[in-house]
Amino acid sequence: MKITLEQAVKLISEKDNMLILTHTHPDGDTLGSGFSLCYALRSIGKKVNVLCPDEIPEDYSLITDSYEAEDLEPEFIITVDVASAEMLGSLNDVYGGRVDLCIDHHGSNSEYAEKLLLDCCAATTEIIFSLIKMMDIPVTKKIADCIYLGLSTDTGCFKYANTTSASHRIAAELIDLGADHATVNKIFFDTKTKSYAKLEKMALEGLEMHFDDRCAIICVTKEMLEKSKATPDDCAKLSPLTRQIEGVMVGVTLKEQDKGVFKASVRTREGINASDLCSRLGGGGHAQAAGCTLNGSLEESKKMLLDIIEETLDDWDNIDK
Amino acid sequence: MKITLEQAVKLISEKDNMLILTHTHPDGDTLGSGFSLCYALRSIGKKVNVLCPDEIPEDYSLITDSYEAEDLEPEFIITVDVASAEMLGSLNDVYGGRVDLCIDHHGSNSEYAEKLLLDCCAATTEIIFSLIKMMDIPVTKKIADCIYLGLSTDTGCFKYANTTSASHRIAAELIDLGADHATVNKIFFDTKTKSYAKLEKMALEGLEMHFDDRCAIICVTKEMLEKSKATPDDCAKLSPLTRQIEGVMVGVTLKEQDKGVFKASVRTREGINASDLCSRLGGGGHAQAAGCTLNGSLEESKKMLLDIIEETLDDWDNIDK
Repeated sequence: MKITLEQAVKLISEKDNMLILTHTHPDGDTLGSGFSLCYALRSIGKKVNVLCPDEIPEDYSLITDSYEAEDLEPEFIITVDVASAEMLGSLNDVYGGRVDLCIDHHGSNSEYAEKLLLDCCAATTEIIFSLIKMMDIPVTKKIADCIYLGLSTDTGCFKYANTTSASHRIAAELIDLGADHATVNKIFFDTKTKSYAKLEKMALEGLEMHFDDRCAIICVTKEMLEKSKATPDDCAKLSPLTRQIEGVMVGVTLKEQDKGVFKASVRTREGINASDLCSRLGGGGHAQAAGCTLNGSLEESKKMLLDIIEETLDDWDNIDK
Repeated sequence: MKITLEQAVKLISEKDNMLILTHTHPDGDTLGSGFSLCYALRSIGKKVNVLCPDEIPEDYSLITDSYEAEDLEPEFIITVDVASAEMLGSLNDVYGGRVDLCIDHHGSNSEYAEKLLLDCCAATTEIIFSLIKMMDIPVTKKIADCIYLGLSTDTGCFKYANTTSASHRIAAELIDLGADHATVNKIFFDTKTKSYAKLEKMALEGLEMHFDDRCAIICVTKEMLEKSKATPDDCAKLSPLTRQIEGVMVGVTLKEQDKGVFKASVRTREGINASDLCSRLGGGGHAQAAGCTLNGSLEESKKMLLDIIEETLDDWDNIDK
């Protein structure tokens, strides 16, 4: 059942011994939401813990360094930035069916929780910020860091089209409250891990352009992953690279999963539907970001994809624009 | 003589037939400032032109597409985002000595103009926005685009430490006024020109790491520039790459200028002074971004630099931190 911000405030105010769950492969928004809400509720005397189904990457120590789990028996389960129970990963079995409140910004939320506070704004931390302020809880520097981190990472540092004037107004408030915006952005938008830098270099060496440079493809083999010691996080960061090249309508990153199995991450510019393209190969996703799995050698997988991309670009050439 | 915003408003209100000058190698802030001020003053019936000493890159057509030069005899010369008369380039000879008003945000402004409106905020367009609002001129979508473009590009899309809460509040206002933030950011922060992509690939292939991976060097030869058809703009965009690698304290981009002449762009992390480092080789610059020119072969130039960098890193190891 969807509830309003006021109803969520009332609900949380009445409860204690809360457990906040984040999604798998945690990002800045789910962690920023979880830890800010935890710190805020603890500051008014409630017992609260945060639980993440995966290990939290080192990059987030800025917001997790003052956290220690408390001894508590969870009575009220909250999920933050978790669009479906499946996104709880290993925590789904235990908690998936008993989430009391979900706070989220994904329009695709599957409404798996008892109560849902949904607002399709740029980041879930925007909702958490409103909640904390409505509860009259003082926003400390640490809370401001958490909220800013979620907002900045989910908007690509205010770059993406999902950024609104409200996002900027919240960022302004957070900076005034002491959020260390420069450090957050240096870590997340101005630093490449060594393993990523190595992987990127190897991947770009094999960059191929097709169809009048409107399609760019890079490949990541298991050998490259081993040589660079790249993490799944490193690998995910490659996906936007191909589309960034001027004139590219379809950018593809092919990643070797197993011998003869490749996962394609497809990124498109407006006008080309990535989800439609990938669905023709058994995959799916969003309009500008989708994926599919291909069975075959690298050359075979590439050919399957390129054939579909060529047809898609031909179709696009032939429609009235 | 430094003047206040109120004095600048009064001064501009009294004048007509104005010429606004931008700096050489124009960027988003000088162009955004110049064109927004021009459009605003024209909308209240004044005759105004903008003059840029260099050709304006295609990327800025979003803000220049509705501009046409008017027939006017300049009576009042304004410079925007121009810290010194030398930055007027080819326009310095004619106008350098007769600038009536300079509007700028560089603390290093040489006070070459008759009157100076200086505010060391993140972008000169922030000052122009205040000026336009104080003159009660309606901010059109086009003006909002200009102001946003300057603000976004000078803050690295709100990434750099110079971004303030005021910058975010202005961005919020501009988005509400119709600024096309998503398009601006796609052009300036999510697109690589083909020539840049080629140059980057070639440069990264030769990436070298030194001194326990605390120094990263890439080289750009004239052959690479010819092969990639890279512009000076493309070349300039390489400079931050080396420092972005995790753990790198000193990042260097060596560019071949002529046979036996290399220009080094040095970028450092806090703690290492790039200007001090470059001054030991006859160059200079800012604390975290500086440069110098080296005479010798590629290997000789690299060795000269690496020797100084090694000493600098040793010194840094030995100070109390």
